[in-house]
Amino acid sequence: MFQSFEVTARPEQGPPRLAALRKELTAEELDGFLVPRADAHQGEYVAPHDDRLAWLTGFTGSAGFCAALHNIAGVFVDGRYRTQVKAQVASVFTPVPWPEMTLGAWLKDQLPDGGTVGFDPWLHTPGQISQVEEALSGSKITLKPCDNLVDRIWTDQPAPPMNPAKIHPIEFAGESHAAKRGRLAQGLTDNGHKAAAITLPDSHNWLLNIRGSDIPRNPVAHGFAVLHDTGAVDLFMAPSKLTGMDEHLGDAVTIHTPEGFLSFLEALEGPVLIDKQSVPVIVAQSLGDRAKWGDDPCAIPKACKNEAEIAGSAQAHLRDGAALCELLAWLDAQAPGTISETQVVSQLEAARRKDNALQDISFETIAGTGPNGAIMHYRVTEDTDSTLKDGHLLVLDSGGQYLDGTTDITRTVAIGTPPAEARAAFTRVLAGMIAMSRLRWPEGIAGCHIEAIGRMPLWLAGQDFDHGLGHGVGAYLSVHEGPQRLSRISNVALKPGMILSNEPGYYREGAFGIRIENLLVVRPAPALPGGDNHRKMLNWETLSFAPIDKRLIDPALLDRDALNWLNAYHAEVAEKIGPRVSPATKLWLDAATAPL
Amino acid sequence: MFQSFEVTARPEQGPPRLAALRKELTAEELDGFLVPRADAHQGEYVAPHDDRLAWLTGFTGSAGFCAALHNIAGVFVDGRYRTQVKAQVASVFTPVPWPEMTLGAWLKDQLPDGGTVGFDPWLHTPGQISQVEEALSGSKITLKPCDNLVDRIWTDQPAPPMNPAKIHPIEFAGESHAAKRGRLAQGLTDNGHKAAAITLPDSHNWLLNIRGSDIPRNPVAHGFAVLHDTGAVDLFMAPSKLTGMDEHLGDAVTIHTPEGFLSFLEALEGPVLIDKQSVPVIVAQSLGDRAKWGDDPCAIPKACKNEAEIAGSAQAHLRDGAALCELLAWLDAQAPGTISETQVVSQLEAARRKDNALQDISFETIAGTGPNGAIMHYRVTEDTDSTLKDGHLLVLDSGGQYLDGTTDITRTVAIGTPPAEARAAFTRVLAGMIAMSRLRWPEGIAGCHIEAIGRMPLWLAGQDFDHGLGHGVGAYLSVHEGPQRLSRISNVALKPGMILSNEPGYYREGAFGIRIENLLVVRPAPALPGGDNHRKMLNWETLSFAPIDKRLIDPALLDRDALNWLNAYHAEVAEKIGPRVSPATKLWLDAATAPL
Repeated sequence: MFQSFEVTARPEQGPPRLAALRKELTAEELDGFLVPRADAHQGEYVAPHDDRLAWLTGFTGSAGFCAALHNIAGVFVDGRYRTQVKAQVASVFTPVPWPEMTLGAWLKDQLPDGGTVGFDPWLHTPGQISQVEEALSGSKITLKPCDNLVDRIWTDQPAPPMNPAKIHPIEFAGESHAAKRGRLAQGLTDNGHKAAAITLPDSHNWLLNIRGSDIPRNPVAHGFAVLHDTGAVDLFMAPSKLTGMDEHLGDAVTIHTPEGFLSFLEALEGPVLIDKQSVPVIVAQSLGDRAKWGDDPCAIPKACKNEAEIAGSAQAHLRDGAALCELLAWLDAQAPGTISETQVVSQLEAARRKDNALQDISFETIAGTGPNGAIMHYRVTEDTDSTLKDGHLLVLDSGGQYLDGTTDITRTVAIGTPPAEARAAFTRVLAGMIAMSRLRWPEGIAGCHIEAIGRMPLWLAGQDFDHGLGHGVGAYLSVHEGPQRLSRISNVALKPGMILSNEPGYYREGAFGIRIENLLVVRPAPALPGGDNHRKMLNWETLSFAPIDKRLIDPALLDRDALNWLNAYHAEVAEKIGPRVSPATKLWLDAATAPL
Repeated sequence: MFQSFEVTARPEQGPPRLAALRKELTAEELDGFLVPRADAHQGEYVAPHDDRLAWLTGFTGSAGFCAALHNIAGVFVDGRYRTQVKAQVASVFTPVPWPEMTLGAWLKDQLPDGGTVGFDPWLHTPGQISQVEEALSGSKITLKPCDNLVDRIWTDQPAPPMNPAKIHPIEFAGESHAAKRGRLAQGLTDNGHKAAAITLPDSHNWLLNIRGSDIPRNPVAHGFAVLHDTGAVDLFMAPSKLTGMDEHLGDAVTIHTPEGFLSFLEALEGPVLIDKQSVPVIVAQSLGDRAKWGDDPCAIPKACKNEAEIAGSAQAHLRDGAALCELLAWLDAQAPGTISETQVVSQLEAARRKDNALQDISFETIAGTGPNGAIMHYRVTEDTDSTLKDGHLLVLDSGGQYLDGTTDITRTVAIGTPPAEARAAFTRVLAGMIAMSRLRWPEGIAGCHIEAIGRMPLWLAGQDFDHGLGHGVGAYLSVHEGPQRLSRISNVALKPGMILSNEPGYYREGAFGIRIENLLVVRPAPALPGGDNHRKMLNWETLSFAPIDKRLIDPALLDRDALNWLNAYHAEVAEKIGPRVSPATKLWLDAATAPL
């Protein structure tokens, strides 16, 4: 089983570790040290080797950092983790509401006479550091790159991950790495760049058609790469990971140990493109004025999936949808009050594992029943495991990593008889989800321009939710992939082949949660009779297929077009998923997808 | 009559004027000179004194510029004016498609060996100039501020406008200028600015509760102002305009001649806030490193109308709506084929003038019938005047300036029997207009986030239109007021009191045009039962009242909520406008507003 329900936070280990860290501060003549939840690749997941924040503080959330000073150690966490952090850290740590309180302002409060705060230049981007430095202007506080002081005191720190990489076959990748290298090199040439330094694993894994298992949930092999304007690549990855890959990588890809990355950059001819959002401070420093700030050159090409990747993703979604339907059918057969969240998670993973195609889950399954459903990033543990009771809504958000694609799907299920206000809110969430699914739009539109369409039915009822409508999704890569997003802060134009989630929700604290999520792929929209011939328009093709719980729908709140969409979608679910499920589940599916 | 149908373009005057300008180029040892359609205040309208582009080239459009070199003179115009420019300029001028062709790229093509191009530093912003200079980097072409060479050769140039300013009474302004100066000064202090240099007339007119008539359509008095962090103002405006204003302006406002503005700036203590979008190059130069780039401090406070301004605007709209209804009733009584566009314009202005409240029209009325309706910024002239024929749609976009408010309204009217495809498109435009009118949204949302809601019904049919959904509107000020916009490029958060237009359209070249426009004001939305108590939400209050032509609506294409909105709106039109119109128009109005 990939998912564990273990309670990993151990508050009592924090105090001695913090004391040891403070000794190092004294030895280095520092007034503080920053401990982010980050590795050199700025990804969402970190290997145990890089899980310094959790090791030091006990806090296991997916974002945040600690600023450890001599007399106070602030643990900065966002709104999702305000409750969790209190349960996970000892009293020697002080939770700080972030980003309301910024690090710069906090340091000014805590170090009124000035001081020097150290940071590991591999773990922060120049943008992050300069933002703090800007806030510190006028104070006598400075930030200073230094060794990682946590690594010094973490005597049993796990080794960096060294798992073997594997070839991502052309049938799934759809384009050879030679072709990818060639067209990206052309882009470098066109922009006058001699090379690009690529520090995001999913970027160079995509570029070279390789995958790995260095961190949980994201099938990537860690390393760094330099793409030259010739199309050649220098790959800085432990050679032991790349055993048997010589033929695949070919002559144009030269393998180096990761340790050689910085000295290679120091000798590299410029200008060298680096990604302003993700490159570590030390990489930018190594390049000096040869660095050209821009966007990771793999980001948009990777986001725009080719036909093989789309077809693979569609296949993965059918397999995954069938597994989810087995779970949903089983769930409906259980009486309210008889099963718990962890059982749902285990049963779902078992269904996904059945045909041995599942490589990993794509993130920790969220199974929140009743009030737990209102916690947006709920991960059930032995401590929080709750029984599914009559009148609950269960939010079930999960996904799988398959060789042909990455899935992410949320369904909200009625347990027994749901309250009327939950049905009304569910129907509004569904109306927004359908409005987005049905949309066509002209080329050039970005997520920030259309996200509101998925919120409008809630807005009209005076309701809303506090997360984005959707995120990009990779092709057997990260389940959260940039830069495309359905978010009011994303101005990246939507392009054919981009896969995004469409997941409006509604959360009533202490009562219930609702979320409905399908993955969609951007397609050139077919011309319509009477439409403007001169306009190129785009629309969505739905990838996810599983019934939407009709017991939670108030049909009076859906307009005719939305009802038609729902019935057509359910007919497609029955047609595509029906042949893939057990006879018992097929019976359940036929009822679940019957027209409203 | 404010509007004229005169054909003002006289192509034959261009060649000798261009020849004279080229002599000045030679005398100044310049290779070119830029002639924008702009004055020192970067407004939409210019006084005859500043109408240099039209005087030199014959082109009378509202945007564009001429780059006059020795061997070529490019007239840069955007998509709206590609046809018009050809008819208006002589062959010595070369129309250039802008912004597809940028000035920088064009200069590089035309001056391959380099050269010096002069510009009047009063008529361009630093941003405009630096954008060109950036494009010129690597070439040997430089831009150089110089005297205005057109003014040298324009022997009968009209004098700068010197019309008297007038007090904008507190009953309409709603806030004394002392109070405005006080709160804006506090903002300067909070941001560490000693003063702000204000070059936009509608900003300092708003700040000091004055109005004027220096340019057509915008009731402003030209001048410049400096607001100090004490709340004191130095106003640089011809004293003759301000006769009798001493008591109104008071001791805290010091009057200077406009000629003293630059030397005043040179001696001013910094930092001085200037608006990055509108300040002339020469103003920025005078301030040197004391200049602090930012936003005009009046922009947001002016955009957020107070209750007196909103009440005044509502009154102006009722008066204006009654005038429009008189016109619409008259129009419906005319047989197809019997009247022309200019008659409609004249009749409408006569209706607006009837009670003597009209100070000016707020822009040139657009009355485009049949194919002319598809020309988005059509202004009818004696040459283009067309007859309203059976099967036409008439687009009628107009507004008035009243002491209590500024109006802008568009109705599209069926002449005889409209074609089915026009009815379908009209209904979609209406559906978008209604969807926006009905919207509620959480605080923090900007125009770019919700504009798509007004386009969605067209998008779903493969259609769209090529202008923004809406613009800000002033309170007896500019009919196009920033920074608030319903546009995909506007990220200014919508705030209570902002007035915006909501004007989706559809244009089929050579066939018909459609636009429906109401003005709306942002209001705090009342709480709804079951809504989220912790969210502050906003919604629209409609200001414009006039029937929407039901003959152009296909009710089968409107959902129930939209139909309900339309019927409720029409009931409100009947109630509010009914008591204000003639008995004949009242009969027409009752039929036009009967429920669908």
